[in-house]
Amino acid sequence: MDRTFLVAGGDLRMKYAAGRLAEGSSNSVYLTGNIFNSELPDRVKYTDDFSGTGTNFDYLVLPAPSTVDGETVNAPFSENKIYLSGFLSLMKRKGIVFGGMINETVEKIFLPSDIEIYDYLKCEEFSIRNAVPTAEGAVQIAMEELSSVLYGKEILITGYGRIARVLSKILCAMGCSVTVSARKKSDIVWASVYGCRGVTIADAMGHPESYDVIFNTVPAVIIGKETLFRIKKNCLIIELASSPGGIDLSYASEYGHKIIRASGLPGKKSPETAGCIIADTVMDYISERSMLYE
Amino acid sequence: MDRTFLVAGGDLRMKYAAGRLAEGSSNSVYLTGNIFNSELPDRVKYTDDFSGTGTNFDYLVLPAPSTVDGETVNAPFSENKIYLSGFLSLMKRKGIVFGGMINETVEKIFLPSDIEIYDYLKCEEFSIRNAVPTAEGAVQIAMEELSSVLYGKEILITGYGRIARVLSKILCAMGCSVTVSARKKSDIVWASVYGCRGVTIADAMGHPESYDVIFNTVPAVIIGKETLFRIKKNCLIIELASSPGGIDLSYASEYGHKIIRASGLPGKKSPETAGCIIADTVMDYISERSMLYE
Amino acid sequence: MDRTFLVAGGDLRMKYAAGRLAEGSSNSVYLTGNIFNSELPDRVKYTDDFSGTGTNFDYLVLPAPSTVDGETVNAPFSENKIYLSGFLSLMKRKGIVFGGMINETVEKIFLPSDIEIYDYLKCEEFSIRNAVPTAEGAVQIAMEELSSVLYGKEILITGYGRIARVLSKILCAMGCSVTVSARKKSDIVWASVYGCRGVTIADAMGHPESYDVIFNTVPAVIIGKETLFRIKKNCLIIELASSPGGIDLSYASEYGHKIIRASGLPGKKSPETAGCIIADTVMDYISERSMLYE
Amino acid sequence: MDRTFLVAGGDLRMKYAAGRLAEGSSNSVYLTGNIFNSELPDRVKYTDDFSGTGTNFDYLVLPAPSTVDGETVNAPFSENKIYLSGFLSLMKRKGIVFGGMINETVEKIFLPSDIEIYDYLKCEEFSIRNAVPTAEGAVQIAMEELSSVLYGKEILITGYGRIARVLSKILCAMGCSVTVSARKKSDIVWASVYGCRGVTIADAMGHPESYDVIFNTVPAVIIGKETLFRIKKNCLIIELASSPGGIDLSYASEYGHKIIRASGLPGKKSPETAGCIIADTVMDYISERSMLYE
Repeated sequence: MDRTFLVAGGDLRMKYAAGRLAEGSSNSVYLTGNIFNSELPDRVKYTDDFSGTGTNFDYLVLPAPSTVDGETVNAPFSENKIYLSGFLSLMKRKGIVFGGMINETVEKIFLPSDIEIYDYLKCEEFSIRNAVPTAEGAVQIAMEELSSVLYGKEILITGYGRIARVLSKILCAMGCSVTVSARKKSDIVWASVYGCRGVTIADAMGHPESYDVIFNTVPAVIIGKETLFRIKKNCLIIELASSPGGIDLSYASEYGHKIIRASGLPGKKSPETAGCIIADTVMDYISERSMLYE
Repeated sequence: MDRTFLVAGGDLRMKYAAGRLAEGSSNSVYLTGNIFNSELPDRVKYTDDFSGTGTNFDYLVLPAPSTVDGETVNAPFSENKIYLSGFLSLMKRKGIVFGGMINETVEKIFLPSDIEIYDYLKCEEFSIRNAVPTAEGAVQIAMEELSSVLYGKEILITGYGRIARVLSKILCAMGCSVTVSARKKSDIVWASVYGCRGVTIADAMGHPESYDVIFNTVPAVIIGKETLFRIKKNCLIIELASSPGGIDLSYASEYGHKIIRASGLPGKKSPETAGCIIADTVMDYISERSMLYE
Repeated sequence: MDRTFLVAGGDLRMKYAAGRLAEGSSNSVYLTGNIFNSELPDRVKYTDDFSGTGTNFDYLVLPAPSTVDGETVNAPFSENKIYLSGFLSLMKRKGIVFGGMINETVEKIFLPSDIEIYDYLKCEEFSIRNAVPTAEGAVQIAMEELSSVLYGKEILITGYGRIARVLSKILCAMGCSVTVSARKKSDIVWASVYGCRGVTIADAMGHPESYDVIFNTVPAVIIGKETLFRIKKNCLIIELASSPGGIDLSYASEYGHKIIRASGLPGKKSPETAGCIIADTVMDYISERSMLYE
Repeated sequence: MDRTFLVAGGDLRMKYAAGRLAEGSSNSVYLTGNIFNSELPDRVKYTDDFSGTGTNFDYLVLPAPSTVDGETVNAPFSENKIYLSGFLSLMKRKGIVFGGMINETVEKIFLPSDIEIYDYLKCEEFSIRNAVPTAEGAVQIAMEELSSVLYGKEILITGYGRIARVLSKILCAMGCSVTVSARKKSDIVWASVYGCRGVTIADAMGHPESYDVIFNTVPAVIIGKETLFRIKKNCLIIELASSPGGIDLSYASEYGHKIIRASGLPGKKSPETAGCIIADTVMDYISERSMLYE
């Protein structure tokens, strides 16, 4: 079955996503609103003028977030504004719009025309796959910031969600001594089974003097005044959680700790992987849905 | 037993070495000819004027290489030239001069005065320990150069010496598919036992199309015209061996391959670790020799 | 706070559980109905005559299952029947009865007297901890059954629950090539992230010729006629799921496959660990509840 | 090139070796003096009467040890004595006799007739490959002897040769805390790099109270009176070294320690693997030699 994709806006990730979609031999893939770098992936066509595309599109793939202003595609590397409503006439009925953090304004444009909307950020597999570039990116930052090796270091990872699981696995394998603190008892036990020291948050914060590196993955403040006062001056603190994060920044600054805020690592450190994950999630959804209808 | 150390010249590593030596409570440690950064490690005294040191030194610790011109200490961060012969009067009899790549001219200065010379680069444990910062540095470079994650990548490591062993261990643990090529059959078998695909050099070079990253650790050219012609255009090639290295650079450039030359990684990426390894090797030697004489 | 435990019935596990409980210095621990082996753990007292115990018990710890007939404790190593109702007068009010697979008849005895009942088999951490002895037991069985090493073997693990996670981790580390099949897509992705080949059940069953060992952890039949027809004659099949298990036994026998049914591994292969896990789960619950009331 | 093998004597290993050799399609393989089990591997012919073999043999493969009495093949599963000298007339000139622990008497029979002798036990790769079944066998024994899991156990491995390397790798991966003691400093550093605690022998013996399991791989007594006095009563001690081994047996018995002597593990626990390793070593040698002559 031939499928036509339009990949619009975004950064380097979307170009890689387009390239990955084009690897499927029955896919024809167009890219628009993403011109910051002239080299196109194989079999991807670039267009800003849809009068020539001839055919309508089955699938529109938008970045994450899909839109900032609610009207135009989030397209930092486009010179022109690209209105979401403009895509409506280009898409086939029963088509699908893919994107991240899709909000009501986007829904209002497409849903009435019988076009489905799928937010890939809500897909569990997408998040697991993305934990790999995030964890590798966090390791890379730690390597760049430290004047010593990771091998042998005392590491604290707060939380034991997806990112923490992948990150702790890599660090254990590199010869670090990894402590994982978690709220849920089952997470503490799992961390122990996977080779870390699994502890409660209270235990982790009770003896913070030994840590050389702290990775926070918890989005609520758990590293507060007392802990920040007691950790080593040169302890490297890497914040992986989204704002406000887990570190009390006012005390961190009062006690002279430098915090590395590391957000959006997949896009920054591994845009190719991040783009392929978007494309794979899109393709998985399409093939699942087609199985459903067969 | 109180011991007095003089650490001279070198780069950031030597400052860290001085700091590590000073952690031994019965050691008193002086640093000279290394002023590029004002902050001294705890308990380390800086001096350029040895008239005030009062006491003679038991141990002189030089960088690697110890000297470039055969006369003065290799001290890129010193404003003045520091003559090796000047140390002679500062050292106790039965003292030891530690350094790397110590040559005949250095020997001629100290040996006649009953001062022992120990080249730490010739110490097997030193080289094993240094393989850790080299391997981590190589991983860091690969992460920085790649637009994708290491997880899942097809990796070739040529050779199975110290660096290759540590490097392959980390990469396997990160989820790479690692092929190790070696000349010695026992190395091929060991690589297999440690979770890599162990192959002959001929086998590795016979199917080079699949590799995403190649780390060379062999100091003789083994990646030649034919292989360079066939590997992927975007295959990342990292040269870890000392000159001339394992890659035929003329063909690499003819076929448009970019080679990352990564030498001296411990000093560049992990100077603290590298300095501590020097200090630990020095301390190990001292304690072994003292056991011998007891 | 002094606590008095009565551990009743069960097998070797309960004796080890009693020993572990007695390690807590403020605990006094009695064992009853479990005499198959005369050596008692340190600080554990054996009794069959409760007239002499003087004091009432805070906690009664029963085996899993707690009872087979609904009236007496499951006590295969006791010469006498021990009636559950007999414990009622020995227990303090506000006491707790711990046990596994506790049914209504047990509840009817204790709940009216204000004695709480806690089924430790329903505790998530208990199950995770128990996955370790189950997985090690499965590896031990595979080692005993195979005339060759596990290293290098092609392994299929069906399912990716607790046991499969621990089992796949061990087998990967031993140099096996591990395929994990799962129904949930997120489990397939996790298995890949943790170093296995993660596949759908259809994919796993589509090419069964390559497997040397199959571990089934799925409690519904997924290895049917077609698969059993195609797997190797000497493929070792180990059934870890509870009855009916995942293998169509009639076809397995028709095609001459030997199935190793391996249930209750913690108790059989690692009774000490299994007993300690019961004791730890009991202690965790007690300390959590006491924190709640403070 | 067609090759004819005669595999003679030995135990189950030699039958598996014959089977493996027969996998090479241009090999024709005969087995003799090894009848304890009637089922032959595919394409292997059994014979006790060489008048019918028609052709002479290129290669004779003997077990390890090849002979006990110096005259007949070591053939515990043969009903008849098989004289080594009897093979002489069956072999082609320029043929090769393979065997283990080949002594002078064997050499005297074959060398004068221009038949080469190759002792595969002296092959480095053979020993590395055999370390895998030995290490797995040692893990299996520990599992069988312990009433608890290996996960979390404090393990001491003495020595860091081939077996210790593979064994420590498996145990680390299973979640044990592994201490490796070694005489050579480079081995101590390597053990640390590979995730163990690397210590001197003095350090390992200085605090023996913590070990749950000790694996000895050192063939000279290093676990003496003092250590045996201080280790736990229920510490499991597994002797992997050949006689006299590393444990002072008189004190071990005086202090009530049970020692598990585990020798010849490849043949006992993994005869198929052990046989294949013999066959692979034989084939490797043949193909290397043929490359030499081409």
